[in-house]
Amino acid sequence: MGGDIHKGLEGVLVGESGLGKVDGENGALYYCGYIIDDIVEHASYEETVALLLDKELPEQTELDRVEETLRERRSIPAEVDTVLEGMADAQPMDALRTAVSMLAGHDDDPDDMDRARDKLLGIIAKVPTIIAAHERYNQGEEPVEPDPELGHAANFLYMLRGKAPGEREAEALDAALKLYAEHGMNASTFAGVVTVSTLANVYGAVTSAIAALQGPLHGGATETVIEMIEDVGGPDNAEDWVAGKLEAHEKIPGFGHRVYQVTDPRCQHFKAHIDRLPHEEYDEWIATIEAVREAVEEALGGKGIWPNTDLYSGTLYTMLDIPPRFDTAMFAMARVAGWSAHILEQLEDNRIMRPRVRYVGELDREWVPLTER
Amino acid sequence: MGGDIHKGLEGVLVGESGLGKVDGENGALYYCGYIIDDIVEHASYEETVALLLDKELPEQTELDRVEETLRERRSIPAEVDTVLEGMADAQPMDALRTAVSMLAGHDDDPDDMDRARDKLLGIIAKVPTIIAAHERYNQGEEPVEPDPELGHAANFLYMLRGKAPGEREAEALDAALKLYAEHGMNASTFAGVVTVSTLANVYGAVTSAIAALQGPLHGGATETVIEMIEDVGGPDNAEDWVAGKLEAHEKIPGFGHRVYQVTDPRCQHFKAHIDRLPHEEYDEWIATIEAVREAVEEALGGKGIWPNTDLYSGTLYTMLDIPPRFDTAMFAMARVAGWSAHILEQLEDNRIMRPRVRYVGELDREWVPLTER
Repeated sequence: MGGDIHKGLEGVLVGESGLGKVDGENGALYYCGYIIDDIVEHASYEETVALLLDKELPEQTELDRVEETLRERRSIPAEVDTVLEGMADAQPMDALRTAVSMLAGHDDDPDDMDRARDKLLGIIAKVPTIIAAHERYNQGEEPVEPDPELGHAANFLYMLRGKAPGEREAEALDAALKLYAEHGMNASTFAGVVTVSTLANVYGAVTSAIAALQGPLHGGATETVIEMIEDVGGPDNAEDWVAGKLEAHEKIPGFGHRVYQVTDPRCQHFKAHIDRLPHEEYDEWIATIEAVREAVEEALGGKGIWPNTDLYSGTLYTMLDIPPRFDTAMFAMARVAGWSAHILEQLEDNRIMRPRVRYVGELDREWVPLTER
Repeated sequence: MGGDIHKGLEGVLVGESGLGKVDGENGALYYCGYIIDDIVEHASYEETVALLLDKELPEQTELDRVEETLRERRSIPAEVDTVLEGMADAQPMDALRTAVSMLAGHDDDPDDMDRARDKLLGIIAKVPTIIAAHERYNQGEEPVEPDPELGHAANFLYMLRGKAPGEREAEALDAALKLYAEHGMNASTFAGVVTVSTLANVYGAVTSAIAALQGPLHGGATETVIEMIEDVGGPDNAEDWVAGKLEAHEKIPGFGHRVYQVTDPRCQHFKAHIDRLPHEEYDEWIATIEAVREAVEEALGGKGIWPNTDLYSGTLYTMLDIPPRFDTAMFAMARVAGWSAHILEQLEDNRIMRPRVRYVGELDREWVPLTER
């Protein structure tokens, strides 16, 4: 059995895609050919969902349909709510994975693949409700019913806090959701695609993607950035702190990316929304981030180590009263759009994903009776 | 971005393995180097689990430990039981996937990867309890508590029916579980491996595998074999029935395999256990299967089309009062051993699974305002 082994499938092409395009060299990200900067500026998260699922900017009537669907399907069945209450002390990602899996039981025909897009819209609609309800139970409070008057992002903050967010807060979360909605093939998206390649239902496929995103090699390191900024202790300490880390050859969280050889194009948008939020109490914090960024860029920019989104996203979430332990769930809330789009793309031209492994164990071993072992 | 596209990852080697070895040319299957015939004859399912997880036949003390663990961890938390009751009308695989995912919430430290093997044993222990409890609720009956006096297979039949099975029945199910415990890399195993490659917890990894197994391209076609035998209507009709199918160029369920070029080596063991079961009322049924087999082998054997396990497994389950809609769940109950073994093998030498896709969409599309679309 010849051939090379492709550990981690690095560099292996598994298919063609018209969804996310990451231009690492120039620091650009595109969704279906539209640059992320245009999407952040002009579209809502709901419109981004429509774009990703259909690969075309929606006309007004289609956008209305998608918005209406996402709005009407927010409520979760009482049984799912009970599960979230029972899992109040579980990690948010374990609860989210379980609840999305359970939704299949509340669909009359979960395996109807002709209605995959519609079912996926239902999942996208419910993910924020699930995350917010679980957090409320974790905090010993009752969940808050979704408000159909609010958009996708604003409604999440409303369900989380029990009161409507300010306009700039809603816009900031909407931006974060758009920025993380899609990023080409990655481990969680791939887990979803592998699962649906058996023609498994979309609840199972999204459940797989959530399961994979939960892993620390994938879900990001925003929590460690928050710890880092606390550890630095102020902008004036940044230069010495960075120098100390570099001397000790320690990794600095929030910098470096596998694909981007320049600053991650999403960073400037996170920073802009952070700056627009009311932030008296965060002035020192933000100044510390910028001081760390300048010190690291000066020292490592020449080596291709530039800021990634982790440097900013945790701060944005913190300013929106979203606790750091929720960062991976926030990622899921955004990325479920990209997962859904890749799942639909796989179904368009499906082949079951079935790689091989090389057998390297012994062969024809002789059975040894238990008494002689 | 050069390179070939590997649709379905066909022929792509993703790693090395010392677990299942399928010799398609000679019709042989090995677990960790031991031929399946020895395993079916000498080991229990519990011993097979120990072999797969550790790649060595267990000594008596280790086998005792594994058996004890599988016995002691059968009970499921009351909250999981409630979910299964709430999902009474759902498909068995949707319920199983949800319940296994939920188990993470009942583990104090689900992400402790150093204890992955122990956690996986806990999952293997609970899968039969979950499937049986769900079926009981589906039938409007209360679940039956596991009986610690019974082995893994016998206890499942006890929980399903509410009374202990006969010895030959328990042996037949034990054989089926062993025969389906492992089969190298396949789509469900791969989904589990992709998920754990992010260092996601093992509950998530097994959940992904269950999700992928649910798909009709993977989970088997035993149900259609049952329908076929009913359609044939008796052994005397087999030859004409097969000839009719061949003339119409229709596929005959229960025959042909992607890898095996001869009869699937597991078939003879299924057949032997079917023959050993009390089967007065199944005499005609079994004779029909054999008549179909002879007719198909005569017509298609020269073309490499031979019986696969689907031809027999559905009949074995039916004789054990396990309804056909449970066939994929029975597959999961067996294969969770192989999934667990591959998950542990991945963790031994992990690299995150991150293939690429070729972007084939448009680039630099100009944003069109909503009003102008």
